[in-house]
Formats: sequence, C-alpha cells, structure tokens
Amino acid sequence: MTATVLVPLLGIAGLAMAFWMYRLVLRYPGGEGKMAEIAEEIHTGAMVFMRREYSILAIFATVVTVLLIIGFQSWHTPLAFVVGALASGTAGYIGMYTATRANVRTTEAARTLGAAPALSVAFFGGSIMGLTIAAMGLLGLGSLYLLFGSDPAHAEAIHGFGMGASSVALFSRVGGGIFTKSADVGADLVGKVEAGIPEDDPRNPGVIADNVGDNVGDVAGMGSDIFESYCGSMIATIAIATTLTAGAIAVMGPREQLMFLPLALASAGLICSIVGIGIVHFFSANAPARALRSGTIGATLIFMLAAFAVITALGINWAVWVCVAIGASAGIIIGLVTEYYTGGKPVRHIAEGGETGPATVMIRGLAVGMESVVLPVLSIVAVIFFASLLMPEGAGVYGVGIAAVGMLSTVGMTMAIDAYGPVADNAGGIAEMAGLGDDVREITDGLDAVGNTTAAIGKGFAIGAAGLAALAIIAAYIQSVARHVEGFDLTMNDPLVLMGMFLGGIFPFLVSSICMRAVGDAAYEMINEIRRQFKEIPGLMEGTGKPDNARCVDIATKAALRRMVLPGVLAVGSPVVVGFGLGAAALGGMLGGALISCVLLALMMANAGGAWDNAKKYVEEGHLGGKGSDTHKAAVVGDTVGDPFKDTAGPSMNILINVMAIVSLVIAPLLTH
Amino acid sequence: MTATVLVPLLGIAGLAMAFWMYRLVLRYPGGEGKMAEIAEEIHTGAMVFMRREYSILAIFATVVTVLLIIGFQSWHTPLAFVVGALASGTAGYIGMYTATRANVRTTEAARTLGAAPALSVAFFGGSIMGLTIAAMGLLGLGSLYLLFGSDPAHAEAIHGFGMGASSVALFSRVGGGIFTKSADVGADLVGKVEAGIPEDDPRNPGVIADNVGDNVGDVAGMGSDIFESYCGSMIATIAIATTLTAGAIAVMGPREQLMFLPLALASAGLICSIVGIGIVHFFSANAPARALRSGTIGATLIFMLAAFAVITALGINWAVWVCVAIGASAGIIIGLVTEYYTGGKPVRHIAEGGETGPATVMIRGLAVGMESVVLPVLSIVAVIFFASLLMPEGAGVYGVGIAAVGMLSTVGMTMAIDAYGPVADNAGGIAEMAGLGDDVREITDGLDAVGNTTAAIGKGFAIGAAGLAALAIIAAYIQSVARHVEGFDLTMNDPLVLMGMFLGGIFPFLVSSICMRAVGDAAYEMINEIRRQFKEIPGLMEGTGKPDNARCVDIATKAALRRMVLPGVLAVGSPVVVGFGLGAAALGGMLGGALISCVLLALMMANAGGAWDNAKKYVEEGHLGGKGSDTHKAAVVGDTVGDPFKDTAGPSMNILINVMAIVSLVIAPLLTH
Repeated sequence: MTATVLVPLLGIAGLAMAFWMYRLVLRYPGGEGKMAEIAEEIHTGAMVFMRREYSILAIFATVVTVLLIIGFQSWHTPLAFVVGALASGTAGYIGMYTATRANVRTTEAARTLGAAPALSVAFFGGSIMGLTIAAMGLLGLGSLYLLFGSDPAHAEAIHGFGMGASSVALFSRVGGGIFTKSADVGADLVGKVEAGIPEDDPRNPGVIADNVGDNVGDVAGMGSDIFESYCGSMIATIAIATTLTAGAIAVMGPREQLMFLPLALASAGLICSIVGIGIVHFFSANAPARALRSGTIGATLIFMLAAFAVITALGINWAVWVCVAIGASAGIIIGLVTEYYTGGKPVRHIAEGGETGPATVMIRGLAVGMESVVLPVLSIVAVIFFASLLMPEGAGVYGVGIAAVGMLSTVGMTMAIDAYGPVADNAGGIAEMAGLGDDVREITDGLDAVGNTTAAIGKGFAIGAAGLAALAIIAAYIQSVARHVEGFDLTMNDPLVLMGMFLGGIFPFLVSSICMRAVGDAAYEMINEIRRQFKEIPGLMEGTGKPDNARCVDIATKAALRRMVLPGVLAVGSPVVVGFGLGAAALGGMLGGALISCVLLALMMANAGGAWDNAKKYVEEGHLGGKGSDTHKAAVVGDTVGDPFKDTAGPSMNILINVMAIVSLVIAPLLTH
Repeated sequence: MTATVLVPLLGIAGLAMAFWMYRLVLRYPGGEGKMAEIAEEIHTGAMVFMRREYSILAIFATVVTVLLIIGFQSWHTPLAFVVGALASGTAGYIGMYTATRANVRTTEAARTLGAAPALSVAFFGGSIMGLTIAAMGLLGLGSLYLLFGSDPAHAEAIHGFGMGASSVALFSRVGGGIFTKSADVGADLVGKVEAGIPEDDPRNPGVIADNVGDNVGDVAGMGSDIFESYCGSMIATIAIATTLTAGAIAVMGPREQLMFLPLALASAGLICSIVGIGIVHFFSANAPARALRSGTIGATLIFMLAAFAVITALGINWAVWVCVAIGASAGIIIGLVTEYYTGGKPVRHIAEGGETGPATVMIRGLAVGMESVVLPVLSIVAVIFFASLLMPEGAGVYGVGIAAVGMLSTVGMTMAIDAYGPVADNAGGIAEMAGLGDDVREITDGLDAVGNTTAAIGKGFAIGAAGLAALAIIAAYIQSVARHVEGFDLTMNDPLVLMGMFLGGIFPFLVSSICMRAVGDAAYEMINEIRRQFKEIPGLMEGTGKPDNARCVDIATKAALRRMVLPGVLAVGSPVVVGFGLGAAALGGMLGGALISCVLLALMMANAGGAWDNAKKYVEEGHLGGKGSDTHKAAVVGDTVGDPFKDTAGPSMNILINVMAIVSLVIAPLLTH
C-alpha cells in the first residue's frame, strides 16, 4: 500500500520537474523583431487549433460520459473516463504550449550561443512533453489504482481511464495529422515545385500553417498516441493479472504484486528517463546524434537494471524480467528494421527509380512499404512465442503485457526525443523565414537531421509497442468476458467470430481512406488558395507583398476538425454496435481482425512514407542529378504521397486498434449481463 | 452413381464444344501481310513464354509430387495433384493458343465483315477458354470423385487436385502478371509519355511484348485463377459435406447427395453457360455491351432455375438453394460496387486531383482503393450470416461453400467474357500496328471498351468468389484436423493461433511486394531498352527503321520467370513449415490472418488500379484539358502505378490464400499422425 501511494506522488514530482524545465527554457532569450513575430504567429496558430479541437472533444467526452453513466449505473467508470481524457488533453496542451516557446529560443540560441545550447533548448522543449506524458500517466492511473484497485467490485472501472486517453488520442492524432499534412503538401507543391522557392520561404503563404502543423501533429498528436499505448499496456496487464490462475500465481509471484508491477515499472522508468535527459544535456557539447543516442541507451540500460531490482523486490519470478528484456529487444529490432527500410539500400533503390519518372518511385516505394512489415511482425510473433514459453500455461499474455509495459516505461525519454524533432524543425523554419544567416541555419539543420532519423525509429517503436499493448488489451477483454460467461472463447470456426474478423479488417482501411482523402482534399484547397495569393497579392513573389498566412492556417484547421470526427466516432462506436448487436464473440473476432489489419497497414504506411521522404532527401543531397532535376521532381511526388501515409493515416492505426480494444474492454461487463 | 458418371462425360462434351468453336474461329480469315505478321509475332511470343513457364512448372510439380509420395506413402494424393496441375496447365495452354488465333481474326472481321461478326469472333475466342476451364474442372474432378469419392480411405486424396490447380494458378498469375505489366508500363512510359507516340504504335519496340502480355496475363493467368477457385470451392464443399453431423443431415438431405451437389451444380452451370454463349451470339448484331449483358444475365437466371431443379431432384432442403441465390446476389453486389469505384464519381474525383499534380492523383486513388473494400467485405459477411442462419447449427460453412459454388458454376460464361477482353484489346492493337483505317479501329475500340468494364466487374466477382472458396477450404481444414484430433478448435486466446494469425497477415504483403518490385524493376529495364532502341536504331522514330521487338519480349519473359518462383514457393511452403513446425493450431491461425489480409489487399489493389485506369481514360476523353495536358500526365502516373496493383499483385492475392488453404487441407491428415 505504501508503494502504491508513491506512484501518484512520483507523478506529481515528474510534473514539477517538467515545470522546472519550462522555467529553464524560458530563461533563454526569445529573439526579437521578425523572428519573435513569426514565432508568435506559430504559437497562436497552434493554440487556436488546440482550443477549437478541445471544444469539439469536450462535446464528445460529455456525450460518452452520459452514455457511460446510463450504461454502468455508477460513477466509477465515467469518472475514470473523464480523468483519462483530461490527463491526455492536459499533457498535449502543456507539451504544445512549451514546444512553441522552445522553438524560437532554439533558433536564438543557435544564433547567439552556438550548437550545444541550441541542442539543450530544443531537447528541453521535447523533454517537457516526455516528462508530462509519463507523469500524467502515473498521477492519473496511480490515483485511480489507489481508489479502485483493491476493491474487486470497481477494479474494472480503471479501464475507463484508458478509454478516455485513447479517444482523445485518436482525435488528436487524426486531427493533427490532417492539419499538418494538408499544410505541408499544399505549401510544398506550390512553393517548391511550382514557384521554385525554397522550403520555409516567408513569401509562401502556407509556410506558417506548415510550422503550426509540425507542433499539432508531431508534438500533440504523437504525445497523445504514446500516452494511450503507455496507459493501455499498464491497464491491460493489471487486468490480466487479476485473472491469473492459482497455478500460475504459485509460479510467478503474489497476485497483488503482479498487479502492481506495471505501475512499479513505469515509476522506475520515469526516474530512468530523467537520468537519460540529464545524460543528453551532459553530452550536448558533442554531436547531437551522439548525445541523443547516449541518453536513450543510457536510460534503457539503467531501466533494465532497475526493472530487475523492482521485480526481485516485489518477490516476482525473474522470468517476468526476461519478458521485459524481450520486449525491449523487440523494440530495438523493430527500430533498426525501420532505420534500414527508411534509410538504407531501399531508399537509394526508390531514388534511382526516379530516373524513369514518378510512377517507378511510387511502385518501388509501395513495394518497400509492403516488404517492411515482415520483420517487425516476426518480432511481435517472437515476443508472443517467448512470453508463452517463459510464463506458466495460460499466463503467456501477462508476459506479452509486461513486454509492452517494458518497452513503454522509458516513455519520458523516448517521447522527449520524438518531441525534440518538431522543435528543431520549427527552429530551422523560423531561421529561414526570419532570413537569418547560413551559420544559424547550419546548426538548426544539423539538429533537424538527427530529429528525422530518431523520429522514424520512434515511429517503428511506437507501432510495435502499440501492437503488443493492443494484444494485451484484447486478451484482457477475452478474460473479462470469460469471467462472466462460462466457457467463453473465440473459436475461428464460429461464424460470428469469423464475421467479426472480416468486419474488424475493414475499419483500418476505412479510417486510412478517410485520413488520406481528408489530406488530399484539404491540400487541394490549400494549393488553390496559395496559387490564388501568388496571383492576386501584388508583390508577393518579389517579397514586397505580405502573404495572408492566417487564411491558410484556417483552411487546415477547418479541414482537420471537420474530418477528425468520423474516424473517432467509428472507432469508439463500432465495438459498441458490434458488441451489443452481434455479441461478445463477434466483437472478439473483430478485435482480432482489426489488430492484424492495423499493425500491417501502420507499418506499411509509416515505412513507405519514411522511405519516400528520405529518397527525396537523398536526391537533394546531390545524387542522381540533385535538386531541380527530373529525378528530383519524381522523388518529390513520392514524398508528397508519403506525407499522409506516414503522418496521418499510418499513426492513426496504432490508436485505432487500441481505442477499439479498450472500448471493448470497458463494455465487456455490460455485454454479459 | 449414374449421375456421377455423367459429370466427367459432360466435361468431355464441353471440351468437344470448345474444339468445335475453335474450328468456327479458324473458319474466319486470318488476314495477311503486316497484320498476319504481327499476329504471328504475338502468337509466337506467347507460346514461347508458355513453354518456358511450363518447363519450370514441371520441375516444381515433380518435386512436390515426390514429396507428396514420401509424405503420404500412397499414390492417391500425388496422382490427384498431378491431374490438377495438368488440368490447369492444359486449360491455360488451350485458352491462350486459341486467343492468339482469334485476335487477328477479330481485326480482319472488323475490317471486312463489320461489327457483329467481329464481336462473334472475339467472343468465341474467349468462350473457348471459358468452356475449357469449366469442362476441365468437371472432367478432372468428376473422374477423381468417381475413383475416390465413395472410398472413405481415399476421399481426402481429391484435395490434391485443388492443390495442383492452385499451385499452377499462382505461378501463372504471378508470372503472367509480371510479364504483362512490365511490358505495359515500359511501353507506355517511353512511348506515350516521352516519345509522344500513340499506344500500340508499331515504332514502339515494347508494343509486341505488351500485346503478348495481354494474353499471358489476362487469358492464361485469369483462367488459371478462376479455375482454381472453381475447383477449390467444389472440393471444400464436398469435404465439408463428409463431416456434417447426423442432426444436420436430417434437416438438409442425404449426405451422399450433399456431397455430390457441387458437381451437379457445376454441371448444370456448364450447360447454362453454353446457353449464355448462344445468347451473346444471337444478340451480336446489337451493341456489344447489350449482347454481353444479355448473355450473362440469361445464363445466371437459367442457372438459378436449374439449381432449384437439381436441388429438388437430389432431395435436398430448399434452404440450400437460398444459399446459392445469396451467393449469386453477393457476387452481383460486389460487381456493382466494383463498377462504382472504378467507373463512378470516385474516378472523376481522382481525375480532378490531377489538376494539382500526380501526388494528388496518387493520394486520392489510394484512398478510393482503401474505401472500396468496405461494401464487398460486408457482402461476404452477409453471406456468412445468412448461411449460418439458414443452415442447421454447425452447418453454416456448407452454406458458405455452396454460395461460392453457386457464384462460380457459370464460370464458362463469366470466363468467356473475361477472356473476350484481351482478344478484343489485341484486335485493336493489331489494327493500330498494321495501320488499318479509322473505321476498323472504331469497331475494335468499341469491343475493347466493353471488355474493360466487364473485366473490372469480373475481377470483383473473382475476389468475392475466391474469398468464399478460401473460407470454405479453411473450414474444411479445421474439420479435417478435428476428425483426427479430438476437441481441436482455433481459439484466439491460444498464443499459437495468435502467432499464426500474425504470420498469415504478413504473406500477402510480402508477395505483393515481390510482385510490385518485380514489375518496377522489369519495367525499369524495359524502359532503358526502349530508350536505347529509340536512340541507337536509325530511323526508328521516322518509321524507316525496324524495332527489335523480340528483345523486349525476352526481357519481360525472363523477369516474369525469375520472379514468379519465390512467391510460389512461399505460398506452397509456408503452410508446410508452419504446420509441421508450430502445429495445426498455428497453421489454422495463419490461414485466418492470411484470409483477412488477402481479401482486403486484393480488393484495395484491384479497385485502386481500376479507378486510376479509368481516371486516365476520363481525361483522355477530353475532360480537364484532355490528352497531353498536365492533368493527363498526372493521370498517366496513376494508371502506371495501378497496372501492377490491379494486374499483378492484386489478382495474386485470391490465389495466394487459396493455395495456402488447400495445401493446409492436403497436409491436414499428416499433421495429426
């Protein structure tokens, strides 16, 4: 019980730490003149979007809360739902608020203080998001565990927290993804391809929207994504622990400790993340890539030791620790595979395809994306295999859940690196738009390049972790139903299960389609608006006219908010409709089909998009004719298609399956009444 | 027993009918001069490819036969395998031989006799393939049923026939698909886009290869595809009938008749197909679209009546007939949905995207493809739902199998229309290359346009039927294992099943990737070769030099043969490795995962490809700037990417899942020893 109280307290400490870092960032000068003006424009655009997004989310959350109150006839699950939604929303808000303060300070640091301080500011900017995510999880989930955890009648209410976090995440990811990519595609196509002006050129009316989008999509969207996997994996593992058989308990350790373990690991992970952040700061005078890598590896290694200590201290079998290690290894392998497919030979192959035009770039990129699913999925299969081997009969899913928790425990560190990317990217954009010197741009470019690599790896890692988390949630769902319905299992020969599997397979394709189409349509609108401004605003191209940036931000905002609703409602609503309409077996089948379909599509889209992105960069580095050549134009087409793949539709998949799974877990007790 | 003998006899009669039609086609004049020369070049190219492909297949079949003899320690299954492979190979050979005789006769008929006789020749050319497919199925499967069907010890050997047919189909489909699209993409990109010469221009060295490809891919490949679904659905339904419970039998009818029903329906279907072919011939003086539609609808309606008569005559419950009707309805719905996505509003939306460049075309096309999976999969779900509702408890899969058999029974007619397409396409190509007048081209263009629409619908129909067939085979696999292992079922909570599901999900992506990459690489080689010829052969562009067509045919042939091996080995080998390595439960899970993944990818790729194709045609009709505009160039990129999607990777998916399922069914008895 004492240890249980420590979890939310550690969460509060983590928030305090994040606030301290924010003060640290604010101590750096924020620049002045044009620079400050641009930064303010980005900050305002991001905050306006956030507020409008959250007002829609508030309506959604209210409706769901009322439905939950009606469904459960009690306040426990609805309360947990609201807390989860608020925790996710607050973390996103804080992360984005501070990221849009850190970006211009990074530019100013690069201008006046040099590379090392610039890295520090950018990384602190990302770290605030990382720490907030980790701390919010511990605070929210830890408090609810303290409240409901020991009361069997209400233990299941905790699942509501995951549902709140996941729903907010889906809206943020989809909305943010549509915003960022419609702005990016629109600005690039008219600016770079048609007008022939460089990226982030202040004459381009879409550039501010593009920079706002980086924050909206890659900070707030990514943060809510990781947050929901992080909480989902913990919730599922706790739920699985409650249903372990007496035989399994005898081998593995006391049930109460097995239930508490996910929170304990996450607590250790938060401390290790803070150490990791310290390591990066310490090495900031070195090359940025090396500093970030030292921090990540350092945090992971210390966490492995800490996890062993925690597991031993709780009196749990060391085999459970091996599951943590397997999870971490799988995460690293998936990351390395992602790095290969989005940076190795396949990328050059795609770029060379550009010599025969954009069609070959597309065909090769799609082929690379499809091939890239193989090894990551084999890694997931290996985790399932070893977890079942190591754990007693029937307890394999606990091992899978713990592996996911292990991968996500150092979320403070991994998210810090993820959020560092867009801060560095923004810093470069501000430098370009404010017309600062080449030396400043060189520093920010260096920071940005590192961010791109780590972002790709982080994305692979996120998909792997989300897949395992979803698997654990689905297992928890099956066990939750089985607790109420004797002999319940999901046999594939059952036509209901089979129908569910087909239904589940559809949703990822449908949601991807909605996302892609939203970006396509919004970009189309954006392109026409930017073309109009170039034509109608006198002197815009010559640099004497002023672009109407706000109009472009508004187009992206409206498109994002309008288009994020349907995927969110589909994801939350489909398990309810299938569960109550066709029953718990069909719903279970649906989760199985959706899991396969989501993981495969997520990997394919993320890696194809990453590979196209880097194929374009490879050409821009001067290969195969370099910038402006026909090969470059072909590569730009690939990159543009890859944008909604990797940053809108792809990342939505992780959350989609988790939302579907957690909603099912929440409504499981109602299905069996 | 008497009725059983009729099945192979009817098969022989069908072959005789096909031979008679061949004589009919040969009676039409074959043209002379340049026309005959070009036709001979296409015929030779196709036959050389076929012979080289079949020598590789012979090696593969020999190895598999030896392995089957070792595994089964008996000659029954190996014999059935060889018969299945030979039946598929023979049907493909006959179909392609005659199609490459009918093409030039269609051109000549259009030139000298007019539109109606041209339609007749082209359609007879396709009908030979249709009848051969149907007849070979009845002859081969009917004979084996006569031999083994009544002997419980060897009844399972019949499954070998399906394995033979499916393996040949996969190689033919993948090899043919790679051939046709590498030639098509190569010829189009250099000819139409770079050199600015029309399609099928004789100066283009890739054009003969392109026309050979139409036969290799769309006649032989498509034929073997439909053949394997046709046989697979019958085999699975027979197998399911043997395991029906006594309770189900009491409601549904005598087991012997339920086993015989698939063959009886297919026999009735062959006769109805011949009637349908007659209807088309009768209406050939009308517009081609109307003639073809009258034939299809006529054949289907007569078949529905015949099916009712057969089911009543066999003393089977009329509810089984409702399953046939549901299958047919689902087929029609899937066809209509396909027509909408590849011809309706989505196509115009994609074309309009071309105004902002190729990237928007790509994004919108991918979105359309992803969305298009929803309704067809819902139709499959509806078939499962109603079949389970109509059949007694546990016999739902028999209803699903019968629905698939019902969809495929009029294969003679549907395949005739499918194979008519490439004959008409070739006829147009020959007219263009031989420099015949606009009036000839107008007739062949009319025939070709109808072919394109029917091909798209046929593709959707084929995917639906293949999906249901695979489902039935998987059900038969589960029951076959359950017969040997008491209490065997596939529960999704079982880690082995879950691992299998993930593994199964991978293969469709991997095989698609191999197909896409093969086309991308071969097209790249082809493009460079065509560019080289345009540069190095003096007077080629002016029409005084002669292109080296054979060199291009050779490039496509080599690429196709080299690249078809891996997918084939993967498909046949993976169930064996997983089945013997991880056991029957993991293999069952793998089939489930592969089924979902295959059906979704197949629909997405087929429909995205079809939509891009028609978006390009929409622009070429003069919309949005018409031919030569930037919008057109953007649309051509979409069409080019769509080519391997819809004609190489997409269609391979149907067969892939069927190969995996039927191999599993064949090895099921070995897994449980």
